[in-house]
Amino acid sequence: MKILVLHGPNLNLLGTREPEIYGAMTLDDLNARLIEEGKKMGAEVTCKQSNHEGALIDILQDARLWTDGVIFNPGGYTHTSVALRDAIAAIEIPVVEVHISNVYAREEFRHKSLISPVCAGKISGFGWYSYVLGIQALIESIR
Amino acid sequence: MKILVLHGPNLNLLGTREPEIYGAMTLDDLNARLIEEGKKMGAEVTCKQSNHEGALIDILQDARLWTDGVIFNPGGYTHTSVALRDAIAAIEIPVVEVHISNVYAREEFRHKSLISPVCAGKISGFGWYSYVLGIQALIESIR
Amino acid sequence: MKILVLHGPNLNLLGTREPEIYGAMTLDDLNARLIEEGKKMGAEVTCKQSNHEGALIDILQDARLWTDGVIFNPGGYTHTSVALRDAIAAIEIPVVEVHISNVYAREEFRHKSLISPVCAGKISGFGWYSYVLGIQALIESIR
Amino acid sequence: MKILVLHGPNLNLLGTREPEIYGAMTLDDLNARLIEEGKKMGAEVTCKQSNHEGALIDILQDARLWTDGVIFNPGGYTHTSVALRDAIAAIEIPVVEVHISNVYAREEFRHKSLISPVCAGKISGFGWYSYVLGIQALIESIR
Amino acid sequence: MKILVLHGPNLNLLGTREPEIYGAMTLDDLNARLIEEGKKMGAEVTCKQSNHEGALIDILQDARLWTDGVIFNPGGYTHTSVALRDAIAAIEIPVVEVHISNVYAREEFRHKSLISPVCAGKISGFGWYSYVLGIQALIESIR
Amino acid sequence: MKILVLHGPNLNLLGTREPEIYGAMTLDDLNARLIEEGKKMGAEVTCKQSNHEGALIDILQDARLWTDGVIFNPGGYTHTSVALRDAIAAIEIPVVEVHISNVYAREEFRHKSLISPVCAGKISGFGWYSYVLGIQALIESIR
Amino acid sequence: MKILVLHGPNLNLLGTREPEIYGAMTLDDLNARLIEEGKKMGAEVTCKQSNHEGALIDILQDARLWTDGVIFNPGGYTHTSVALRDAIAAIEIPVVEVHISNVYAREEFRHKSLISPVCAGKISGFGWYSYVLGIQALIESIR
Amino acid sequence: MKILVLHGPNLNLLGTREPEIYGAMTLDDLNARLIEEGKKMGAEVTCKQSNHEGALIDILQDARLWTDGVIFNPGGYTHTSVALRDAIAAIEIPVVEVHISNVYAREEFRHKSLISPVCAGKISGFGWYSYVLGIQALIESIR
Amino acid sequence: MKILVLHGPNLNLLGTREPEIYGAMTLDDLNARLIEEGKKMGAEVTCKQSNHEGALIDILQDARLWTDGVIFNPGGYTHTSVALRDAIAAIEIPVVEVHISNVYAREEFRHKSLISPVCAGKISGFGWYSYVLGIQALIESIR
Amino acid sequence: MKILVLHGPNLNLLGTREPEIYGAMTLDDLNARLIEEGKKMGAEVTCKQSNHEGALIDILQDARLWTDGVIFNPGGYTHTSVALRDAIAAIEIPVVEVHISNVYAREEFRHKSLISPVCAGKISGFGWYSYVLGIQALIESIR
Amino acid sequence: MKILVLHGPNLNLLGTREPEIYGAMTLDDLNARLIEEGKKMGAEVTCKQSNHEGALIDILQDARLWTDGVIFNPGGYTHTSVALRDAIAAIEIPVVEVHISNVYAREEFRHKSLISPVCAGKISGFGWYSYVLGIQALIESIR
Amino acid sequence: MKILVLHGPNLNLLGTREPEIYGAMTLDDLNARLIEEGKKMGAEVTCKQSNHEGALIDILQDARLWTDGVIFNPGGYTHTSVALRDAIAAIEIPVVEVHISNVYAREEFRHKSLISPVCAGKISGFGWYSYVLGIQALIESIR
Repeated sequence: MKILVLHGPNLNLLGTREPEIYGAMTLDDLNARLIEEGKKMGAEVTCKQSNHEGALIDILQDARLWTDGVIFNPGGYTHTSVALRDAIAAIEIPVVEVHISNVYAREEFRHKSLISPVCAGKISGFGWYSYVLGIQALIESIR
Repeated sequence: MKILVLHGPNLNLLGTREPEIYGAMTLDDLNARLIEEGKKMGAEVTCKQSNHEGALIDILQDARLWTDGVIFNPGGYTHTSVALRDAIAAIEIPVVEVHISNVYAREEFRHKSLISPVCAGKISGFGWYSYVLGIQALIESIR
Repeated sequence: MKILVLHGPNLNLLGTREPEIYGAMTLDDLNARLIEEGKKMGAEVTCKQSNHEGALIDILQDARLWTDGVIFNPGGYTHTSVALRDAIAAIEIPVVEVHISNVYAREEFRHKSLISPVCAGKISGFGWYSYVLGIQALIESIR
Repeated sequence: MKILVLHGPNLNLLGTREPEIYGAMTLDDLNARLIEEGKKMGAEVTCKQSNHEGALIDILQDARLWTDGVIFNPGGYTHTSVALRDAIAAIEIPVVEVHISNVYAREEFRHKSLISPVCAGKISGFGWYSYVLGIQALIESIR
Repeated sequence: MKILVLHGPNLNLLGTREPEIYGAMTLDDLNARLIEEGKKMGAEVTCKQSNHEGALIDILQDARLWTDGVIFNPGGYTHTSVALRDAIAAIEIPVVEVHISNVYAREEFRHKSLISPVCAGKISGFGWYSYVLGIQALIESIR
Repeated sequence: MKILVLHGPNLNLLGTREPEIYGAMTLDDLNARLIEEGKKMGAEVTCKQSNHEGALIDILQDARLWTDGVIFNPGGYTHTSVALRDAIAAIEIPVVEVHISNVYAREEFRHKSLISPVCAGKISGFGWYSYVLGIQALIESIR
Repeated sequence: MKILVLHGPNLNLLGTREPEIYGAMTLDDLNARLIEEGKKMGAEVTCKQSNHEGALIDILQDARLWTDGVIFNPGGYTHTSVALRDAIAAIEIPVVEVHISNVYAREEFRHKSLISPVCAGKISGFGWYSYVLGIQALIESIR
Repeated sequence: MKILVLHGPNLNLLGTREPEIYGAMTLDDLNARLIEEGKKMGAEVTCKQSNHEGALIDILQDARLWTDGVIFNPGGYTHTSVALRDAIAAIEIPVVEVHISNVYAREEFRHKSLISPVCAGKISGFGWYSYVLGIQALIESIR
Repeated sequence: MKILVLHGPNLNLLGTREPEIYGAMTLDDLNARLIEEGKKMGAEVTCKQSNHEGALIDILQDARLWTDGVIFNPGGYTHTSVALRDAIAAIEIPVVEVHISNVYAREEFRHKSLISPVCAGKISGFGWYSYVLGIQALIESIR
Repeated sequence: MKILVLHGPNLNLLGTREPEIYGAMTLDDLNARLIEEGKKMGAEVTCKQSNHEGALIDILQDARLWTDGVIFNPGGYTHTSVALRDAIAAIEIPVVEVHISNVYAREEFRHKSLISPVCAGKISGFGWYSYVLGIQALIESIR
Repeated sequence: MKILVLHGPNLNLLGTREPEIYGAMTLDDLNARLIEEGKKMGAEVTCKQSNHEGALIDILQDARLWTDGVIFNPGGYTHTSVALRDAIAAIEIPVVEVHISNVYAREEFRHKSLISPVCAGKISGFGWYSYVLGIQALIESIR
Repeated sequence: MKILVLHGPNLNLLGTREPEIYGAMTLDDLNARLIEEGKKMGAEVTCKQSNHEGALIDILQDARLWTDGVIFNPGGYTHTSVALRDAIAAIEIPVVEVHISNVYAREEFRHKSLISPVCAGKISGFGWYSYVLGIQALIESIR
């Protein structure tokens, strides 16, 4: 089973950016961990990141050709991108939305997600562990 | 480690109620499964259900005396209960909000949760498996 | 044919509460009249009342086991209860929403009903006679 | 006792228009039935229909001279016509608002009625039987 | 100078309709008075009334061929008719909006006028005398 | 193939009304042109206009008996008429919504159309040529 | 009969301020004219102006002791002052609201008046002549 | 004189719950103090608490039979309960709404009270002393 | 202990203004009473009133130099004045907001207070006695 | 005459993406067809597609140097991109907005277009044929 | 060149009021500094302050007679004063809006300025230095 | 001291795009001027521009490694980009938001900035000179 973990804008700064909200682990550390966790569960995890909305759409469209599902943290695009929503609706593989922080305990504009209605499910608030839960949830829904 | 799984209104009808949304498993089956999953992860799981907002508050208040954390599916009260929100904020143990269905793919009024801002995190859309992920997330945050 | 007439919060005060809005008949008088009207139409009417949202949910869930349909005046919960809405959607018997007063000629917040979309139909404004029309409508839809 | 049954816009297409919403009975059949039902209850029922907002106002104004009350299905004008509302408020006879479908289970803009606050009461969701209930309710309020 | 006084829906009921709001004078009395007042100011006043939005548009369009300006009480269409607004914008003669009652002391939905932005001016709240002021204002603006 | 071109309120003033928005061609000229364009494409075009919402409903209802489709410019009723929307939904022939001006570059209240969701498609902003494109689009969808 | 004409903020700049909206007459000219018009109608007109909300309240409160009614142009305070509204409601003499420009053809925030619901009536859009009509309307209502 | 002090949801946790907002005194301490304060003012104070909306309604309804007035802290139900509002409107004794914290300095949703319009008055922000002021205010209004 | 009682706009009319809302006591009577009540509680009460927003700000700013706290009835400025809010936030002494009437039982726009979030607490609905309670509450918070 | 047909995000998936909404034709087929249709009408059509908002802006800016006008389907960016709107306003050539589906029959957020006010016109709902109509409309406006 | 620096409500407390937001410099110090900075740039700076909306209007109106432009910090009136906005629009000299704090990082109601649309430009967030930048910007625009 | 001047979408068209709003200077001219102005103030200014939201994020993230602060004109992304907001919050250097035009005198949707709350300050409306003021403000805040 092949899984794409896709990180949206500013997640490349993980570990350096507002650590009181996003934690101290860097993106490379996190990715290493996710690949390892994936292995344990019998899944081959590939990780990508981009700050570009268009690049994220390209990657998602491409993912339908070589993965069984996607773990997606859309970052700031969660609240503003109809184009990403359409991309997720257009590909036929399951996408799980994850967030590191509890977005509902933050600014009002972060409470609305354009992405959620077309995802398989959503996990938020458990720090880097949100991703691990996401991988598990994805594997479960594919099975 | 002791964990309370608390089911809100109408979840006692699980398996008979709109199975295309909530699945075919009954609440007793689900509870048995969660207790077993808890055991595997080294946690003693207790399950309760009530249709009464006040009873749910009573149970949550009481839980702070004998559990390490709560998995809570507030059902229809998710969107309307400030009193439940206050109860969660008042007790000091972590509470994880779970939903069986992807509430964001349903009616507009289900998109707003009064409960989420005071929970540790939120998981929705993975059917009964949302609860399993919730237990895992809770154990992780307690550790 | 068995019919449940279910009165929501504050309807136990009927006859004593704001008689210029709700009329001078007491709840006991009303219930006696409805049982009699039911008999004329060949239906066995049972009447219950509760001020507790949770108790109303319990009664509705239970009703699906022994009635053919429900006449429901949700009182103040009409405008605030997603949990009651979910209960009505969950049981498979028809529910007719009735109101004594013309709720649309009162405060703005009384114009919105969370209950109506999942009911078979709605009758409001005809005083205690709204219930009689409700019983008739229910019998008609069951037939 | 004389009663006017007034049908608003598009109700002349009854039986041919979206039968899954409005049923298969034609307007002529319905009117015949209502006249008969009226007779049973001791009321002389007259039926009119118009697609013209102005004509409906003319008919309502005229009705105050020769009827004891009106059963009115304002159709699409329910949600948009202040002029019809003013006409109902201006005549002194009771008007009962009826709808064939459960308007609350349809589009958001159908949930708001400008007409309801000035009517005696409202009945919706029981198909053609809504009219029969309306006649009964009207006779009851006149008595 | 030729002036059209155009009365909208339900104004034909003047004197019989809610006299505490609209006064006790009938439409015929009012028209007689306005014709007389017009004469005093050197204007030939013609009065028309219709309950039909379309007829009001026809009359307004026609008025541009034979009048110097219009006094218009759009009644309930004030708040809902874009088509009447477009008609007023389309003809090149000045239109003065008048209201018998103080619409701002009544229901919220009466506070918004779609007509006002395209009129020369607006007079409301002075009973039948609003029309007299309107005629004067119109004559003043034409001069 | 038979096509109805239906013009809504104030379009009879075409050529005289605000020519900087609606152009200098009169309605008769436009209709002559559309009949000719229709002929070129093998369609028999009939043109009607009314300022009356009710008359437009009558015409649309009637059209289902003798045309294959309708080109409809609802004018000011676009933004306010649920009754016209219901008429379009009730007849089974395709209706194409056209507008002479770019309604989105005008007042806010012109941006919302109650008609569009039940039409086959929408064309706006190309002056009288919007109608020609509409005829073509309609013929294409019928084929 | 004694009448106060009260001008609100920035009206002292009349004739110099945005003459395309407010006209070329100065406040002194206007006041002279109003005194003269008042005389013709048998009323003694006094004119005051202030840019201070509090001073306007003081003047209105004082007016109830020596005038029979007030013509009030509240200028920019029309849309923002609850305190002025309360002052008008508190004094028992009639107040007529006037505006030089057609406020409804200007910015959205000028369409809402906090003052109108407690005034006898409202006149807007006729330039300086709005005041003359106001005096006439006031005299008419006092009689 | 007999007074009921009624505490709503989560107030049983007083002293343990978020002491920076609600203070360090327990509910038992507070009740003892209120009984004593009542005595000083010549009133017999009885204290009750419930987390159940329905139970609070039951208690309020019952109170009209044996008290002269109620001090009510509706807690989280303040912002969501039409049923409690209806109960207060239905009983004829005065009810004073009290809050420990300054609700207006907290989350937006706490600024709106469904209860206030039907209460005699409201006191908020003075910690436990809000109750003492409430008792005094109640005694004053009864006298 | 020195206390300022500050009355906002139109409160100088107390006793003459809408007595069914504000009571029959004049401002002088009220002030005399408050000074006396203050004395009983060991506080020296000074009373001021102004209809000028700016003067109220001046007085509040000055109060921080010679009082221990303020009782403030902001009248109509409650709902519109950010400047007064800023003044209260800027001075370091406690301010208690009081209202004579139950503002929540009046017009919608009176339900929102810009002042409350920066005050120590709020008392409304108890007539002139609201001030007495306010003085007590203020003394309690200073102690 | 040179025309650019510009496809926005996810349109590269045409034919594979939700064919019940977007049809079965691939983007290459569509482009071939449009080039051919263009030729028939005497226009040289060039087709581009990008998922990147920034790239679409680059292409539009560049288009002003070598085309006479643009057919633009902005896809999901229609509803969210002020930057694209600014680009269209900045270049001086006409841009025609086209949509394959009837966006008004879909989710609420698709009803609002930031792009429309700065385009020459808009065509939606006719499947791939929307583009053909767009080319024709563009050629007509350029002429 | 003559410049007026006008400070709105509560700015006289500068240095004593919430120094973490507004800084520690007093108004006199600030004014001294601005006069000196003005001199360097060849401008004669005069400074005024008032807590009175009306006084600020008076000063602005007067300024058009003796200054070349104004630096204006409207304080709390920024968000509520149409009268000040009208004053700025009425005088013909350029006005630059300045704020000490970053108003966009504070309460929601501070994000909306009624003043900005009629000013030459706006500078906020740079502490007392906002004024210096304002003077420079003003001199630049006058040149 | 090193400063980045970052221009957002469509600013590469400066001088050619709507010169009545944005002025006649080209981007190259502007950049040359800013570099020179920077030099005068002892700062090394580097200028970049992109139409790509993602590229702007990349550049901002990179800037934290080699600059002391940023002058940012986010163009159309000002109103729609949470991702850019997050990038500014994530890097620790000060960012000053600048706009050439007075955005508050333009369309409603340009009044809201998602960027402002996380910037050091904001300058708008002074044409190209906004940038010069921005550089000065930035240098001042760094010092």
